[in-house]
Amino acid sequence: MKLVEWLAKHVTDDPRALRWFGEAEADDRIARAFQELLAGYEVEPATILKTTRRLEPGERPGVVEVTEIAFYSLCAHHFLPFFGHVDIRYEPGDRILGLGKLPRLDDAYARRFQIQEDLVRDVAHEMMSTGRARGVLVRSRAQHLCMCSRGPSNHTAITHAEFSLGTLAVD
Amino acid sequence: MKLVEWLAKHVTDDPRALRWFGEAEADDRIARAFQELLAGYEVEPATILKTTRRLEPGERPGVVEVTEIAFYSLCAHHFLPFFGHVDIRYEPGDRILGLGKLPRLDDAYARRFQIQEDLVRDVAHEMMSTGRARGVLVRSRAQHLCMCSRGPSNHTAITHAEFSLGTLAVD
Amino acid sequence: MKLVEWLAKHVTDDPRALRWFGEAEADDRIARAFQELLAGYEVEPATILKTTRRLEPGERPGVVEVTEIAFYSLCAHHFLPFFGHVDIRYEPGDRILGLGKLPRLDDAYARRFQIQEDLVRDVAHEMMSTGRARGVLVRSRAQHLCMCSRGPSNHTAITHAEFSLGTLAVD
Amino acid sequence: MKLVEWLAKHVTDDPRALRWFGEAEADDRIARAFQELLAGYEVEPATILKTTRRLEPGERPGVVEVTEIAFYSLCAHHFLPFFGHVDIRYEPGDRILGLGKLPRLDDAYARRFQIQEDLVRDVAHEMMSTGRARGVLVRSRAQHLCMCSRGPSNHTAITHAEFSLGTLAVD
Amino acid sequence: MKLVEWLAKHVTDDPRALRWFGEAEADDRIARAFQELLAGYEVEPATILKTTRRLEPGERPGVVEVTEIAFYSLCAHHFLPFFGHVDIRYEPGDRILGLGKLPRLDDAYARRFQIQEDLVRDVAHEMMSTGRARGVLVRSRAQHLCMCSRGPSNHTAITHAEFSLGTLAVD
Amino acid sequence: MKLVEWLAKHVTDDPRALRWFGEAEADDRIARAFQELLAGYEVEPATILKTTRRLEPGERPGVVEVTEIAFYSLCAHHFLPFFGHVDIRYEPGDRILGLGKLPRLDDAYARRFQIQEDLVRDVAHEMMSTGRARGVLVRSRAQHLCMCSRGPSNHTAITHAEFSLGTLAVD
Amino acid sequence: MKLVEWLAKHVTDDPRALRWFGEAEADDRIARAFQELLAGYEVEPATILKTTRRLEPGERPGVVEVTEIAFYSLCAHHFLPFFGHVDIRYEPGDRILGLGKLPRLDDAYARRFQIQEDLVRDVAHEMMSTGRARGVLVRSRAQHLCMCSRGPSNHTAITHAEFSLGTLAVD
Amino acid sequence: MKLVEWLAKHVTDDPRALRWFGEAEADDRIARAFQELLAGYEVEPATILKTTRRLEPGERPGVVEVTEIAFYSLCAHHFLPFFGHVDIRYEPGDRILGLGKLPRLDDAYARRFQIQEDLVRDVAHEMMSTGRARGVLVRSRAQHLCMCSRGPSNHTAITHAEFSLGTLAVD
Amino acid sequence: MKLVEWLAKHVTDDPRALRWFGEAEADDRIARAFQELLAGYEVEPATILKTTRRLEPGERPGVVEVTEIAFYSLCAHHFLPFFGHVDIRYEPGDRILGLGKLPRLDDAYARRFQIQEDLVRDVAHEMMSTGRARGVLVRSRAQHLCMCSRGPSNHTAITHAEFSLGTLAVD
Amino acid sequence: MKLVEWLAKHVTDDPRALRWFGEAEADDRIARAFQELLAGYEVEPATILKTTRRLEPGERPGVVEVTEIAFYSLCAHHFLPFFGHVDIRYEPGDRILGLGKLPRLDDAYARRFQIQEDLVRDVAHEMMSTGRARGVLVRSRAQHLCMCSRGPSNHTAITHAEFSLGTLAVD
Repeated sequence: MKLVEWLAKHVTDDPRALRWFGEAEADDRIARAFQELLAGYEVEPATILKTTRRLEPGERPGVVEVTEIAFYSLCAHHFLPFFGHVDIRYEPGDRILGLGKLPRLDDAYARRFQIQEDLVRDVAHEMMSTGRARGVLVRSRAQHLCMCSRGPSNHTAITHAEFSLGTLAVD
Repeated sequence: MKLVEWLAKHVTDDPRALRWFGEAEADDRIARAFQELLAGYEVEPATILKTTRRLEPGERPGVVEVTEIAFYSLCAHHFLPFFGHVDIRYEPGDRILGLGKLPRLDDAYARRFQIQEDLVRDVAHEMMSTGRARGVLVRSRAQHLCMCSRGPSNHTAITHAEFSLGTLAVD
Repeated sequence: MKLVEWLAKHVTDDPRALRWFGEAEADDRIARAFQELLAGYEVEPATILKTTRRLEPGERPGVVEVTEIAFYSLCAHHFLPFFGHVDIRYEPGDRILGLGKLPRLDDAYARRFQIQEDLVRDVAHEMMSTGRARGVLVRSRAQHLCMCSRGPSNHTAITHAEFSLGTLAVD
Repeated sequence: MKLVEWLAKHVTDDPRALRWFGEAEADDRIARAFQELLAGYEVEPATILKTTRRLEPGERPGVVEVTEIAFYSLCAHHFLPFFGHVDIRYEPGDRILGLGKLPRLDDAYARRFQIQEDLVRDVAHEMMSTGRARGVLVRSRAQHLCMCSRGPSNHTAITHAEFSLGTLAVD
Repeated sequence: MKLVEWLAKHVTDDPRALRWFGEAEADDRIARAFQELLAGYEVEPATILKTTRRLEPGERPGVVEVTEIAFYSLCAHHFLPFFGHVDIRYEPGDRILGLGKLPRLDDAYARRFQIQEDLVRDVAHEMMSTGRARGVLVRSRAQHLCMCSRGPSNHTAITHAEFSLGTLAVD
Repeated sequence: MKLVEWLAKHVTDDPRALRWFGEAEADDRIARAFQELLAGYEVEPATILKTTRRLEPGERPGVVEVTEIAFYSLCAHHFLPFFGHVDIRYEPGDRILGLGKLPRLDDAYARRFQIQEDLVRDVAHEMMSTGRARGVLVRSRAQHLCMCSRGPSNHTAITHAEFSLGTLAVD
Repeated sequence: MKLVEWLAKHVTDDPRALRWFGEAEADDRIARAFQELLAGYEVEPATILKTTRRLEPGERPGVVEVTEIAFYSLCAHHFLPFFGHVDIRYEPGDRILGLGKLPRLDDAYARRFQIQEDLVRDVAHEMMSTGRARGVLVRSRAQHLCMCSRGPSNHTAITHAEFSLGTLAVD
Repeated sequence: MKLVEWLAKHVTDDPRALRWFGEAEADDRIARAFQELLAGYEVEPATILKTTRRLEPGERPGVVEVTEIAFYSLCAHHFLPFFGHVDIRYEPGDRILGLGKLPRLDDAYARRFQIQEDLVRDVAHEMMSTGRARGVLVRSRAQHLCMCSRGPSNHTAITHAEFSLGTLAVD
Repeated sequence: MKLVEWLAKHVTDDPRALRWFGEAEADDRIARAFQELLAGYEVEPATILKTTRRLEPGERPGVVEVTEIAFYSLCAHHFLPFFGHVDIRYEPGDRILGLGKLPRLDDAYARRFQIQEDLVRDVAHEMMSTGRARGVLVRSRAQHLCMCSRGPSNHTAITHAEFSLGTLAVD
Repeated sequence: MKLVEWLAKHVTDDPRALRWFGEAEADDRIARAFQELLAGYEVEPATILKTTRRLEPGERPGVVEVTEIAFYSLCAHHFLPFFGHVDIRYEPGDRILGLGKLPRLDDAYARRFQIQEDLVRDVAHEMMSTGRARGVLVRSRAQHLCMCSRGPSNHTAITHAEFSLGTLAVD
């Protein structure tokens, strides 16, 4: 079964469109591109976060944040990419986490079929459970190609979703 | 009845102005342009918002916002365009709404004869009623051609109107 | 009586300065320029504000603001211009005001001999009285030529004055 | 004859649109707004430019330019505004022109039904004929509401037209 | 035949990915999104350009340009969007073209399976043939999701392609 | 003879305007402000430039420039300020000039009744004569209060004048 | 006694350094430069502030601020300049102060040997005592040449000092 | 023992990599570079802070801050640099500290093997102990080469860590 | 053999430095980080470039460029990273190259021990040989940690290297 | 001999100025600050430049540039700092120079008593002689405290000096 058949049946039978996908390796090439955008399913998020050091008894930690983490995701409704940036802010619980792991955590949840509101929720919960954070605030801003490429009022629009838990919960 | 007659009677009888509108297709061409700016009357706003997913019982959602939504509208008093950007921020009630529908909702109310203060109010009420939001905040900023093209102090001016309801109501 | 006489008596008798003002039409040309900068005396501010629509009983309005209104004024102390921008923010009382009238109101008070602190106060009071606002906040920022052209520390300076009343009063 | 009749016949018969224009003063209010946008027909461009001073025999003048002149015009095809900025650059011929007159010249040609390509051409020719310039370069950039409010790819677009003559002619 | 079958065979069989596409309307919803991105096949580019006015005999026109035209396209190799902005600059031949048609021409060629280098070439040739331009320069800059979502060095990269013909040809 | 008499005769007899200038010290205070704006008549420009060091025989100097020199001047036609920035670029002749003297030279010509085109010419000639430059290029950009405070199209406009001589002459 | 002697004894005896200061007028030229940077000692700060008008009984004034006042000072510890900008914000007591006097007050305290923390304190106290303000907030930001020219981590650093009193006191 | 041996054993045995480090002086040159990045171990932080002046009894000091202090550090986990900027804000206790010493204090802790969260904590504690501050807030933002050079989502990310004590403690 | 031994012998024997590297997994963790920065040795650059399509006989291609390609490299002299951005501009020869391959080519040469001048040269030659370009221009700008972390004048410095061949060769 | 004696004799005898310099360590502290600003006399510029690698016979090198090199210098006429940035661009002759040495070369000439025009000349000549460059272009931009702290028109001014030799000589 080939993508060109789906295209021809559901989207367009214009031969100028279909001719690009007749060749043998077309489906493989496309599949590889989508596999990279869906690589998050291969990762177990609970294993990503690493401890840089344990807090000492009674130690009061400062707040830590990684901002401008780029992400790419696939809209679960339209099979088109959405992408943007995420900021993850947390207050350490019993450990300081490796800073470089926070983008990896975000990547593991983004490279799936997602909706933006669930992406920030999933990351926040993981920071609390396996990251043992006292509090977390995850904010994202994105462009959705299912949205900005359609209709006259949409293509400058920026979508925002945020989620917070624990000591950093926004009421 | 042709627009050139109205022009000649109410605005100017300068032949250099009127000559543009004597040809047969002039009224059709102009009417099509205005029909696009008034296309909101063809849309029933209550049918626009779609549910991406229902909240689960007890689920606490984060706040969602779409910013920089471009809009074009016609000033109900002067028959001239005003245009700018709208931000729609909401706290979900029992459902997460399709992000791409928020610009469409705004468009449905903007492409009418409007005043900017009513545009934000109309969008906010629709988010609460058909969108079942717990709270909503709609902010807009615009330029009005009935204003910026007249008088020496006006043409850099930016007009702002906002409206909020429910948990996001600004006192 | 001609301006050149005043110049020669009070400011400078350098013939290179005075030669520009000897010709017959000099005073007329200068007077016309100053008449435009003082045109506010010809306007009755209480007649400027217009009602776009009345609020309905029990209607809660949102806040409205017009920002970046350019203004030009004459310093009442030094006969030199000051100019900048004004923002007018108000909460409607029993009516929504025509947005385009707010710059005209500001212009009516600015095109006089003024001091910047009185300009914002005058506009604020007019918004409350003839505009029936519940609250108003007027902010201005300006450059004064009597100030920025003199002394080594002044010419990047920006002057700010603000005035607020009613529900928007800043304590 | 009233504008609401034209609207109802050519554009829309939605009563929510037509209700705004039923009242007696609607046509007058709209006509006044359009009269300001068409005020250029009241002005004779050949009388605008004034001489600041004559060049002395053999005097080589420098190049003079006024940039960022705001303009508002009406698209002759769609009865909708287009607006933006014009730069006028000239090399003086036998006189230096009053700088403040260049925006007025542009205004006289812009406040008409126009197309952007003709606006820059008209200004350039006037600078050569009544302004006696040796050369002139007029550049404009604009937004057209007949364009940016329609179709998904248009609304960030900026249109440019330029025209040059004499010693500043661009080949 | 459904997209979920292609996904399962070529990309991933993770049930968390596949569950989104099991429902009946999934293929229709996705197909509609792609039909909008491929709407260019429905348009005959040779019919888009319109004449605003003919040049008069001997008339030397200025150069005209529309910049910052937003476009959305689908990469013919990876089935993923690429998008960005195009500038179209032309020197009129025997006619001045409607400015609003240039973004539509670009849109007609962009909303297809494309490669960026061919998009600018196609637009340039159309401007010369049906637009009768003396010369044309088309420049584009874009982001490719098949590129910026893969590999560590790619995601800030911007791709540029340009094509010129006639009097505006860049050697 | 007092300024209030001139005002009352030529500009306005509104008592709200005239009341500011009745007091005894008004003319003195205003005169002092104008004396500062006309202080250039007190300075002999030919004495300003100083030599930092002589070039050695056969020494080839690099090009030197002072940019963003702020200036304040009085429009010789309208008795209102114009102000902005000047850049002075020169190629040394037989000496390198003290950098701090270039703003002083500009100030000496600006603090007079001037027209912007003559200001750059005067500075350029002085750089060649008493500064012994091989070439000079003087560029200025300004706002004129006689211009930006009048008419609807003027107040964002920026005026430019430049003048060049010798090896830096722009043809 | 000459500066070159102090240099040779305390700083360097390199003849390439000392040769610049052997000539007779060197000390005078340097002394004049430092006299300008220390001119504040010639000014009595208590005499600077002037009253624009008295508040009327019961009049509630708005807040007034002058921002971006440039200042130059000499570090009392290292004999090297520090410089930057000051903002002075005050709430009038029984009088509105002349706006142009606030930069002069700052200048009087800056053109001395100073430390940045004392500069803002001195200005704030003067605003309260001779300016009769109800409250004052003075903020400064600066670069110190004794600091940014030394050591590898310093030269992008910006120093801030602020001081507040009365109704504007920050706890 | 030479670095090339460690490289060959642990990282790569590609001769194109190893050839750079075979020469005798390679280890010395590299060691000198790392010694500069680790120079903080040579400094006793408790000796750095100096007193500019003592507060007088009862004197209430304003808040002081040094922002945009550049720092370079070595990640204790990956032997790769991280670098960025630190802001140190403090409220003086019994003394005003020399402003130039704050960057030196930061440098003393940064030029070590560090983790960013400990760097801000160490600086904050030193400001309280040897600096006798009433309160301190230290904020940092950085790029980590162990992070931004790895993986597709990381290289635009910015890491933030902050720590506060005393009267400036953020809850 | 462990890195801590090299550190202790060549760089520092401070126990606070050495303690980080005593644990068993330290060398592995560091080696993995360096292996990623040296991954270019695993790639054969001649196999990277792919053909999007062949030019047709006589087809004149436009110029293509990929800008803002992020890169990370290791300074071959100091064992410290340098990083920045590369722009690759080329004129196609007999084929149009896959745009996404250009960043990969750059990455293959950057992730080695390099000097910036050789990096641009290597990429340029590969574009000509395996890419069959008619001409190529490669420009880079970077920060070197061996440079910006040392000495007082260096840390804002940006290094640039460029290399061009064929029809795009800069003389 | 102490600096306070020179101050008292040449600049000011105000005791508020002199009191800062009476203490024993004042001269030492000031001398150390000036020694850092004059450290260039301790360096032999001809020994700074290092060879990264020799060009191979017939190798055509690309152009190399280091921009935004911060510098601090002392004005040889006024004993006050001037500072800014330098760009050094060169075409290699028989060797590629160590990039990190270019800021050091600039520093060696800047940290002296200098005039800005000589600083760029000195650096350019050194690049040609000990650096064996084919061509060099050195550009600088600066602020002079002897200039920007004096007179009303100076303090925004930026001074530029450039010098070029060999194949990069600007005619």
